[in-house]
Amino acid sequence: MENKFNIRNERNLTMLVDFYELTMGNGYLNKNLQNKIAYFDMFFRRVPDGGGYCIMAGVEQLIEYLNNLRFTDDDIIYLKNKNIFSEDFLKYLKDFKFNCDVWAVPEGNPVFPNEPLVTVKGPVIQAQLVETMILLTINHQTLIATKANRICRAAGNRPVMEFGSRRAQGYDGAIYGARAAIIGGCDSTACTISDKMFNIPAIGTMAHSWVQLFDNEYEAFKSWAELYPDNCLLLIDTYNVIKSGIPNAIKVFDEILKPLGKRPTGIRIDSGDITYLTKQCRKMLDEAGYEDCKIVVSNSLDEHIIRDVIDQGACVDSFGVGERLITAKSEPVFGGVYKLVAIENDNDLIPKIKISENDEKITNPGFKKIIRIFDKSSHKALADLIALKNEHINESKPLTIFDPVHTWKRKKLTNYYTKELQVQLFNNGNCIYNSPSVLDIRDFAKIETDKLWPEVLRFENPHNYYVDLSENLWSLKHSLLHKYTKSYETQE
Amino acid sequence: MENKFNIRNERNLTMLVDFYELTMGNGYLNKNLQNKIAYFDMFFRRVPDGGGYCIMAGVEQLIEYLNNLRFTDDDIIYLKNKNIFSEDFLKYLKDFKFNCDVWAVPEGNPVFPNEPLVTVKGPVIQAQLVETMILLTINHQTLIATKANRICRAAGNRPVMEFGSRRAQGYDGAIYGARAAIIGGCDSTACTISDKMFNIPAIGTMAHSWVQLFDNEYEAFKSWAELYPDNCLLLIDTYNVIKSGIPNAIKVFDEILKPLGKRPTGIRIDSGDITYLTKQCRKMLDEAGYEDCKIVVSNSLDEHIIRDVIDQGACVDSFGVGERLITAKSEPVFGGVYKLVAIENDNDLIPKIKISENDEKITNPGFKKIIRIFDKSSHKALADLIALKNEHINESKPLTIFDPVHTWKRKKLTNYYTKELQVQLFNNGNCIYNSPSVLDIRDFAKIETDKLWPEVLRFENPHNYYVDLSENLWSLKHSLLHKYTKSYETQE
Repeated sequence: MENKFNIRNERNLTMLVDFYELTMGNGYLNKNLQNKIAYFDMFFRRVPDGGGYCIMAGVEQLIEYLNNLRFTDDDIIYLKNKNIFSEDFLKYLKDFKFNCDVWAVPEGNPVFPNEPLVTVKGPVIQAQLVETMILLTINHQTLIATKANRICRAAGNRPVMEFGSRRAQGYDGAIYGARAAIIGGCDSTACTISDKMFNIPAIGTMAHSWVQLFDNEYEAFKSWAELYPDNCLLLIDTYNVIKSGIPNAIKVFDEILKPLGKRPTGIRIDSGDITYLTKQCRKMLDEAGYEDCKIVVSNSLDEHIIRDVIDQGACVDSFGVGERLITAKSEPVFGGVYKLVAIENDNDLIPKIKISENDEKITNPGFKKIIRIFDKSSHKALADLIALKNEHINESKPLTIFDPVHTWKRKKLTNYYTKELQVQLFNNGNCIYNSPSVLDIRDFAKIETDKLWPEVLRFENPHNYYVDLSENLWSLKHSLLHKYTKSYETQE
Repeated sequence: MENKFNIRNERNLTMLVDFYELTMGNGYLNKNLQNKIAYFDMFFRRVPDGGGYCIMAGVEQLIEYLNNLRFTDDDIIYLKNKNIFSEDFLKYLKDFKFNCDVWAVPEGNPVFPNEPLVTVKGPVIQAQLVETMILLTINHQTLIATKANRICRAAGNRPVMEFGSRRAQGYDGAIYGARAAIIGGCDSTACTISDKMFNIPAIGTMAHSWVQLFDNEYEAFKSWAELYPDNCLLLIDTYNVIKSGIPNAIKVFDEILKPLGKRPTGIRIDSGDITYLTKQCRKMLDEAGYEDCKIVVSNSLDEHIIRDVIDQGACVDSFGVGERLITAKSEPVFGGVYKLVAIENDNDLIPKIKISENDEKITNPGFKKIIRIFDKSSHKALADLIALKNEHINESKPLTIFDPVHTWKRKKLTNYYTKELQVQLFNNGNCIYNSPSVLDIRDFAKIETDKLWPEVLRFENPHNYYVDLSENLWSLKHSLLHKYTKSYETQE
């Protein structure tokens, strides 16, 4: 279904750049390097929370940003007043037209460390300029989609509602956080504007203040039941769940709904011990003949508490999750980076590497792609291979993959098929990709996640999914490493 | 100085509401309660990171939001299609005009748990509607200002630059996060758009990609020095700090800057062991005659690492702080809440309370204000008193304050003066407050923070600053508590 309320976001975030992208841009132009073709990869190094995989998200917003890239007259005046940028550079920005090629992994895909989630090819002055926004966009939504995916897995088949707007880190943290939460598997959100923008279901009933406003809890519940007899969900912990909330709720169900032939939708508990209170409530509701009345709980939930209360036999039908989801509280940073991996010299591709004393921070050079390898019988994902863009895998032949560090660990694959993960978003600055709807992305994420072995899905200490380098990429990387090490030795 | 580039933010965030605010609004109207006057307080219960105080921030954005409150035709159509809102309610929203009174603690003030940071008085249908955005706005910026304040205190008189846009939680996380970081004490930001919007200094030099783009590090540094001889700050860790970065930097300082009569600005290190590397670099720079060349470090810094490396004698002149500041990584949630504290019945003020089995979650009822009490000699802040709005303190008489839980702990104050912290922002929906500039707020925060005793400023286990209730407020609260407890007893 098309969302006729979909807001094509035209917010111009061009100036959301780290200032060094402008000082470098000015430098590229001054050194006549502005049109040198550069290749940048966006990738991350570690899955948050010690999990086995991340859920890619944010591509639609990345596209909107790139489509809206332009410097206003105001921007140019602001920059001119800094007195460090050349007139040529200011003119370049004034006439700026994005003409890079961009590839990305579509939203909803499970992704793994070191994989190029986004690749940009184009004039270095442009490819550099978009660094901050690519990172910011993908880092944020992938973080939240991944956290939501953990929480929803813990909840099993019980729906999870995203409730966190009020504790988000800024307006977009709420708006796009809700979008990412749905991609990760949430059922609905409390954030109305996100529903309007992305056609994701917004839900909500009452706050404690509704109850407090009336002379007593019974009157508050009664008014609500009269108002929403078809969707009567009562918040029962304003005063005392067991002594006041549940008895008043049952009384109202009996007195208001029953004569109308209506059944209650549910009750919600937002404080206190979930296991104890939900068991008591379930018992009291059942005894009153409301076995079908759902119990919704909220209050600082995350995947660990949800798993715990389910293990303890808490009687919960759905979970409302707030601050710990919308901020990814347990690990609120997704450490994606954006690194130069190649340049072109007279149409020759020159791979580039960033060395580091920390082995994990050494980059994979060259223009690359991600190949996911599936088992032909089970359709489970066996491994990902990061390969050079021009490599081709002959699926009719066995494929040997190997650990990029412990290279003697080798595995021969037969009976497999492959899929390239990246798709092209922009060709010479023109968008050539249509984003699916958010709900379709959620369905896709579910399907793709189900292709991972259960060992990879484990919350703690999951099996490390294989992300290997092709033989060609491995050789290229190691030849560059040797070259640089040698150059220091010469200096000494 | 006025910022002529200041963007008066006209973004309409009216629909950034939790859906329950709309279902309740529909209910108030249906029950003819829409014009009942309600009083809501926004407050928090705990200082993040176990700190002694928070720095209030976000008031300017709260004002912008309230000034821009209006529902568009699109919004109304979206809501109509939900098929749960009455025509009267949709018409009410279409004609919506904000006419509440709003009070808040001005930005930059140190604030403490349970203090009403924002108070809204007005028709309950309106006062309820703004809940999400008040919380979201103040929670986010106060969180980041408070974290920045901790980091800047650790850095002492060394400037701290905010570098975190790429790891922020959404665009506003970066934009308003940078604003809040400056309020907390940061010297500058890398976020260009925040400079343009708020007139806070944006800074930046080069990324690793600049170095990688050239045939070698020396050429990259040489080009930069030629380009920016007056502000030559080189990133020296692309390959190897000691073997390559520093020698190349010194060579370029000698060959390019010296003949021009220019001095280098600095070098930046973004990886490796800060203490070891900066000591080595300092030595090498000094030996080469560049004692004035600054050393800037970055790489996952926070208040603890900064304090540690300073203790270890690291030679650092300024710090660039990224993800751990912009997300408040160690505790990324500021748990502000928005609670009904009173209603009016025929012009009588009826205080309201939210009970909880968790003592700390019981609210302070009534229409209130915050009075800060200062020592007349030292001008240090002695205590805050939460009082009823109509209370008056006679400064010429001794004032006895007492602990609201352990009421026998009493203290008699003499030689003091008082200041009311809240100011009125809106009168009947009209804004009557001018926000100071962000840099002025930073200066104000410094002055006000200096009025706290050092014991309150401690990072770990600080002295609990006294936040007491006036005798009248304490009595009111306890009479309501007794009333509700009694009502349960009657039921049993």
